[in-house]
Amino acid sequence: MKSIPLILMGVGGVGCHLLQHIVSCRSLHSQQGLCLRVAGVRDSKSLVIAEDLLNKGFDDSFLLELCRIKSAAGLSLSKLGDFGECRVFEHPESQGKILDIASQLGKTTGLVLVDCSASSDTVEVLKQVVDLGCCVVMANKKPLTSSMEDFEKLFTYPRRIRHESTVGAGLPVIASLNRIISSGDPVNGIIGSLSGTLGYVMSEVEDGKPLSQVVKAAKSLGYTEPDPRDDLGGTDVARKALILARLLGHRINMDNIQIESLYPKEMGPDIMTVEYFLGHGLSLLDKDIQERVEKAALNGNVLRYVCVIEDSRCEVGIQELPKNSPLGRLRGSDNVLEIYTRCYSDQPLVIQGAGAGNDTTAAGVLADIVDLQDLFP
Amino acid sequence: MKSIPLILMGVGGVGCHLLQHIVSCRSLHSQQGLCLRVAGVRDSKSLVIAEDLLNKGFDDSFLLELCRIKSAAGLSLSKLGDFGECRVFEHPESQGKILDIASQLGKTTGLVLVDCSASSDTVEVLKQVVDLGCCVVMANKKPLTSSMEDFEKLFTYPRRIRHESTVGAGLPVIASLNRIISSGDPVNGIIGSLSGTLGYVMSEVEDGKPLSQVVKAAKSLGYTEPDPRDDLGGTDVARKALILARLLGHRINMDNIQIESLYPKEMGPDIMTVEYFLGHGLSLLDKDIQERVEKAALNGNVLRYVCVIEDSRCEVGIQELPKNSPLGRLRGSDNVLEIYTRCYSDQPLVIQGAGAGNDTTAAGVLADIVDLQDLFP
Repeated sequence: MKSIPLILMGVGGVGCHLLQHIVSCRSLHSQQGLCLRVAGVRDSKSLVIAEDLLNKGFDDSFLLELCRIKSAAGLSLSKLGDFGECRVFEHPESQGKILDIASQLGKTTGLVLVDCSASSDTVEVLKQVVDLGCCVVMANKKPLTSSMEDFEKLFTYPRRIRHESTVGAGLPVIASLNRIISSGDPVNGIIGSLSGTLGYVMSEVEDGKPLSQVVKAAKSLGYTEPDPRDDLGGTDVARKALILARLLGHRINMDNIQIESLYPKEMGPDIMTVEYFLGHGLSLLDKDIQERVEKAALNGNVLRYVCVIEDSRCEVGIQELPKNSPLGRLRGSDNVLEIYTRCYSDQPLVIQGAGAGNDTTAAGVLADIVDLQDLFP
Repeated sequence: MKSIPLILMGVGGVGCHLLQHIVSCRSLHSQQGLCLRVAGVRDSKSLVIAEDLLNKGFDDSFLLELCRIKSAAGLSLSKLGDFGECRVFEHPESQGKILDIASQLGKTTGLVLVDCSASSDTVEVLKQVVDLGCCVVMANKKPLTSSMEDFEKLFTYPRRIRHESTVGAGLPVIASLNRIISSGDPVNGIIGSLSGTLGYVMSEVEDGKPLSQVVKAAKSLGYTEPDPRDDLGGTDVARKALILARLLGHRINMDNIQIESLYPKEMGPDIMTVEYFLGHGLSLLDKDIQERVEKAALNGNVLRYVCVIEDSRCEVGIQELPKNSPLGRLRGSDNVLEIYTRCYSDQPLVIQGAGAGNDTTAAGVLADIVDLQDLFP
């Protein structure tokens, strides 16, 4: 039986789903001669580690209780100290403790540090565990979208880092792109709709509905962030575009990406509240979008909010695309990625499906962890 | 520098492209600390092995000359004896020689046996090298579609076998399915158009063109086998369906797959020549297909030649599908696969792109080889 110890950072929706998936896959993985051993879990305040972390991880009932405490009860991990079986460390002490464990395990059995947080703060500990011989799996985009130095440091040992769920959740985007790259098939361009929210919005305005109405509907369906401007601004799509561009070898930063925001600066969060934006600001944008939709339709095209990566170009914004292309045919909140290479030159390689959701994001993280198994003794 | 020795069986179009890709990726792979060392190449008559195969492989000029001899000149590998740098073994002696090498390398550096042939005869040597601790990469479907015993034997060590290019050429179908399986996301169903030829044929008859005319056009475009009945019979699609079904855990054989042939037994190759079939037989089938197309259209549907894998069901044939689904929207010769799982339940995960061609098939094989690197010292 091959044993893979891991420490999880971030136990929000994705992290909890990951722990539940690990528990429910026990017998499947055991059939494959694999045991995933959760040795530690960290939230924004504390780190809990298993008593006997060098040999065992938390048992499954502890992991499920941990998820219950975090998701249902909304409590801090430090509450788990009452259950025994674990030791609790508060920040900032927790960071040193993770490095201690990484240093011990990195040289012997190996360790996977899993980042399911949404924080910029994890990049330091991630870089340090890379040096200690550990593997890194990320759903968190932030460590890969900070400086180019951080990115290259994390990729010091490219086989030890996985991050499928940073782009398109569990959709096999990164795995497929890495296969293309390693087979020497040159990528000529990537164009993709990588925001479920903006995919939904653009296909609804195509039907003639006013932008303001569509955004409000998307918000009430739970498709948007609490402040829909977090989606409409395009920054999250730009992060995904940056990760893809860097994988293709572009040595660029967020600053180098041209981002089209669907709302003007004068309607930004520092100027108006989200209520005022939804009640008064947003509808002022309806006419412009409607005119652009109609103009595109005259050319037989539709508008999509996409990332375009091509040569040295990396852009995020509205593009006019043929109605009869994979992106043009997109309806609803699916993500779609078109990859053009020497092998896929006339017609692109297309990957399409749900690109958001805790369940599928966690599934992508779990597949990444399992895929690291050959690096473990 | 990590060195991966390999022996290639089959140097038709795919095998030659693979060797060319290996040569052209030298500097890319070297940057990744990787060296692919071609230690031997086998065609249907002979095996050539590198002089110093334990330490070096053939040099690149030898490999390119080998491709030239095979593809341009159409000669046998035994001609290469004249060039030095290699030893030539004729069949059946070659099989024993491969096992000798596998036995030597399997215990030390490891070895990848790559099957780019289209032969049923390779399964015996493949099974034996698995026992010797070697890895196997296949573009050849036949070893995975013979008996269930052979299949299970080849998968004795699942991490050491890769076969992306057996389904949809280089499209990331197998890699994506394996990720889904290892994350414990249950697959509820797969439906796919896995023949470029039949994809083209079905989208053309949808436009009202007679089947006979479409098949003849496809033949002259080079889309079909020399005898188009090899495509129209559905056996090749059934092989791919069988591979997918077995990956999902179905313990079935080719006999268990219900295959709809687009021509009746009375027009089979043992009854009429290909010329007679194309000149006289085929047009007798036009009316029936046309009526089925029209009937489907009345329901707002289109006809597609697909494989359907669902519960214990595995079928290959014409299905009526919604015009407005990824498969229904398919035009031309692309392959499309829809995978339904817990995570992709309402909308499937869709993978689409060119599913044939020596270049893309060889790219899939190369990505498989590179992906085995963590198993090598």
